[in-house]
Order: sequence, then structure tokens, then C-alpha cells
Amino acid sequence: MEHKAKKLVIITEKVILEGVTKIIEGCGATGYTITSASGKGSRGVRSSDRDSLTDAYANVKIEIIVGKSELADEIAEKVAAKYFANYSGITYAQDVEILRPTKF
Amino acid sequence: MEHKAKKLVIITEKVILEGVTKIIEGCGATGYTITSASGKGSRGVRSSDRDSLTDAYANVKIEIIVGKSELADEIAEKVAAKYFANYSGITYAQDVEILRPTKF
Amino acid sequence: MEHKAKKLVIITEKVILEGVTKIIEGCGATGYTITSASGKGSRGVRSSDRDSLTDAYANVKIEIIVGKSELADEIAEKVAAKYFANYSGITYAQDVEILRPTKF
Repeated sequence: MEHKAKKLVIITEKVILEGVTKIIEGCGATGYTITSASGKGSRGVRSSDRDSLTDAYANVKIEIIVGKSELADEIAEKVAAKYFANYSGITYAQDVEILRPTKF
Repeated sequence: MEHKAKKLVIITEKVILEGVTKIIEGCGATGYTITSASGKGSRGVRSSDRDSLTDAYANVKIEIIVGKSELADEIAEKVAAKYFANYSGITYAQDVEILRPTKF
Repeated sequence: MEHKAKKLVIITEKVILEGVTKIIEGCGATGYTITSASGKGSRGVRSSDRDSLTDAYANVKIEIIVGKSELADEIAEKVAAKYFANYSGITYAQDVEILRPTKF
């Protein structure tokens, strides 16, 4: 039942979420999960109010499970090329074992 | 101080959260972490309002650290058997190194 | 473009978030991402109201990408030494492949 896959994670600014998900869908990924986040990076604090996390999210964490690492690379490249000159963002990949066929 | 463990991740619909955590506890896992999420998958958009992430979460991401992969498999099987015919969900496992003994 | 790195994850109580991020910054990490969370562990339910996840978060999940595992170990040790006698918390590390140079 298990199979190896890649999890691509994109953490970036919430204002570009719609554009990023269009790239993900345009690359053919079949699903993704979005979590609100805040943080701090080389460009400074990423949320204006760390004490009220549920109110003042400035960032999103987008996770995409893909079968092939080439698709993760393609999404990461396109998102970075379009947005990361002007918006904060980081993308990384991790190995995962899918325990059940995805129903999403 | 380090030891190898597995992180089991279940991303599914919020309406079944209580049932899923009962299965997790019933299998003997000692703790889990829940994050609200939204997303899109093969069954369509998983949140009705992507622009107000903090208000309209439809999904949850549940993470469970387990010492043995057999326990991750057991939880994933039981959750899938009970819910994934009728609810969206994906489960995957990842290797982790526990840096400190869990206090949760 | 890829390079190997470590993702350090600290899941702990929200009340100590500021102190934990001070340790992270003091160790020289260049950025981190915070997500609100709830959960259950050996000390009991970590959120008072599991049904209203967006209102009653008691926990935070802090993720830090570091180039060297020694830095992950140092942060984990200092956080544990200062807080984990009195607060719930777990820290673990995972391998990640950074797909783009971080802009955070």
C-alpha cells in the first residue's frame, strides 16, 4: 500500500497565494494543503502581531504531494521565477511514504 | 539524545476530527498535534473561502509521532477503513529524529 | 540549485513562544515559521476547545531551516533546558532539500 513520493513545501506571503496555487494547478499537481503561518526571516518579521496568531497571519505554508521530484522542481522554479524577486519565500522538498492512495 | 521515529500525517476533513483522534488514542499513540488547513484536491476545493483562511477552515492536519512504523500503519489503515470511502483524506509518513524525549 | 539542510520542528505551548524565538535568534538562525496548533499529549489535552480550532489555540509549531544539524541540536538543547521542565514540548529534526535559495 505504501509508495514513495515527494512533499514540496512553499512558505511565502499570503498576498500571492492565489497566484502560487494557479502555478501549482497549471503544473498538473492534483492537490495541495494550505496552512496560515507567521514568522521571521532575513527581510524582517513576517507577521505584524506575533501575539495574535489567528488574526494577523501574513504568510502561508503550502504543501503539495507529488509523485515525481521533477514536478516539485518545476513548481518551485516557476513560483520562484515569478515571485521571489519581490516577495519572501522558501521552498523545500522532503521524502514521504504515502500510506493510502490519496482521495483528495 | 537522538532517536529515530516516524511522523504520521493525516490531512482530512474537520468534521471527522473527533473520530480520527479516537482511533489514534485507541491505537495507543501518546500524543498528536492538530493544525487547521484548507486546500484543493481531486474532490474539489476543500475550503469555501480561500481568502479568509482563519475563518473558513474545512480541513485539519493531524501529526502523530510514533516510535514504530507499524503503529503509523495501523492508525492509517483504521482511519482509511472507517472514513476514506466518504471523506477526503491523505496519510503519509516521514522519518524524524527526536532531539529531546517527548514531554507531551 | 538544491542543497541539503535540516528542518528543526519545536511544538510547544504558546505562552513561551517569545522566549523560544529569542533562543532561536540568539543561536543565529536566519528565520523561522510559526503555525498555531492544538493537540493532546501525556500531560493531557493541549487545547481547551478542540471544536473551535481557530479560537482556542494553546500550542505553536515552530519550524526552523538550518544548514547544519549542530545548530538544530543547539537550539533544541537550549529550549529544552530552559522550558521543558515546566512546559510541554517536543522537538524533532528532518532532512530537507532546499529547492531555492531562501529569501526570508
